[in-house]
Amino acid sequence: MTDLNLHLKINDFYTRYAESICDGDIETWPEFFTEKCLYRIIPKTNYDRKLRIGPMFAESKGALKDRVVAIKETLVYSARSITHLVSGVRIVSVQGDLLKTRSMLAIYQTLVDGTTHIQLVGRTFDSIDLGDGTPKFSERIVVFDSELLAGALVFPA
Amino acid sequence: MTDLNLHLKINDFYTRYAESICDGDIETWPEFFTEKCLYRIIPKTNYDRKLRIGPMFAESKGALKDRVVAIKETLVYSARSITHLVSGVRIVSVQGDLLKTRSMLAIYQTLVDGTTHIQLVGRTFDSIDLGDGTPKFSERIVVFDSELLAGALVFPA
Amino acid sequence: MTDLNLHLKINDFYTRYAESICDGDIETWPEFFTEKCLYRIIPKTNYDRKLRIGPMFAESKGALKDRVVAIKETLVYSARSITHLVSGVRIVSVQGDLLKTRSMLAIYQTLVDGTTHIQLVGRTFDSIDLGDGTPKFSERIVVFDSELLAGALVFPA
Repeated sequence: MTDLNLHLKINDFYTRYAESICDGDIETWPEFFTEKCLYRIIPKTNYDRKLRIGPMFAESKGALKDRVVAIKETLVYSARSITHLVSGVRIVSVQGDLLKTRSMLAIYQTLVDGTTHIQLVGRTFDSIDLGDGTPKFSERIVVFDSELLAGALVFPA
Repeated sequence: MTDLNLHLKINDFYTRYAESICDGDIETWPEFFTEKCLYRIIPKTNYDRKLRIGPMFAESKGALKDRVVAIKETLVYSARSITHLVSGVRIVSVQGDLLKTRSMLAIYQTLVDGTTHIQLVGRTFDSIDLGDGTPKFSERIVVFDSELLAGALVFPA
Repeated sequence: MTDLNLHLKINDFYTRYAESICDGDIETWPEFFTEKCLYRIIPKTNYDRKLRIGPMFAESKGALKDRVVAIKETLVYSARSITHLVSGVRIVSVQGDLLKTRSMLAIYQTLVDGTTHIQLVGRTFDSIDLGDGTPKFSERIVVFDSELLAGALVFPA
């Protein structure tokens, strides 16, 4: 695959990932990950100190599916709309089928009857596995800039 | 045209569309549409229920030109600057010269002497006609996340 | 170089530029410029009237390096995180090794213990020199929408 085709494929992957969350198709979200994977949302202050605590953490696609069940059936939260803006998607390195990639992300949240506010902004540091033909995240680390999030983080980033 | 060239052309089209609004060249804005077209800005709550009411609606380039005349000559509003951030431009399907496309959009508005605030964020669901050589929107549906907009929507999205 | 390769190269350049600021690698920031260069951040109201006053101005890479020293050693400011979202990167014209380019930019700033807010949004009007193999800004004009910035502008845009 040429650099250009790979670049287009990875950008498309990030775009469809954002759509799965913003369109409310949260059931499709775990399918963007490999079976064994690392998913983590952590504040920059912890990331910079190599600490690992953050508001979301999972080590398998099964755990991500649990999260989806929680969102759809267990968690109590007010209805909200989410829009992701993603920029700066970049392929940092390629080793066979494994890519290191990164991006910049802003997530806007709107509660029913409410105005739109910034939920989080930050950078993502990701690994993508091209092994089975379609890209999948084997790792996705979302590093957000604030120490506290304004309100609960219901949906993934 | 290869996928890559088409992708570049469509991204370039979305970029120049945003520039026409953010540069204040609002006269050029209707030229991004075909003669017969559908332009609609609607809240997500209505879009999800297949209701059609929203703050802007037009069915022809002529109606868009009317809007431009209103902006330049009739409407009374305080001066403001607009910046569009667009991401996630994606070609969903291609049928001959007709493309279904979509994007994520954040519009920032700044009143004179004021600070910058988010006017709207959301997704656009569009149809683009390549028939006359340059892309034109035959349909542009802007679905924004909030039920209410903070302040009047003077400029198009 | 084909249009596609050039487009990819320029997008990559804008992305790495944003990373150098958001990753805190501010020492690397001047290396994105040619030795003789023009760097300017100005409010839209001045830009539109062809006035030149704004919160940052430099005419050489040396002056940018001075800014870095100020940020790292002299200026007193509270710690903050920065995220840049960049969209609409477009090559406006090509003349030999010199490109005119532009982009849309939103900068989010987060103070320690604080929430994320918009620091500035606007457009950049740039010149890029490809003469020595890697792109460098020979000119970067950041035109922001507000007349006042909320808080000090410590880091470059």
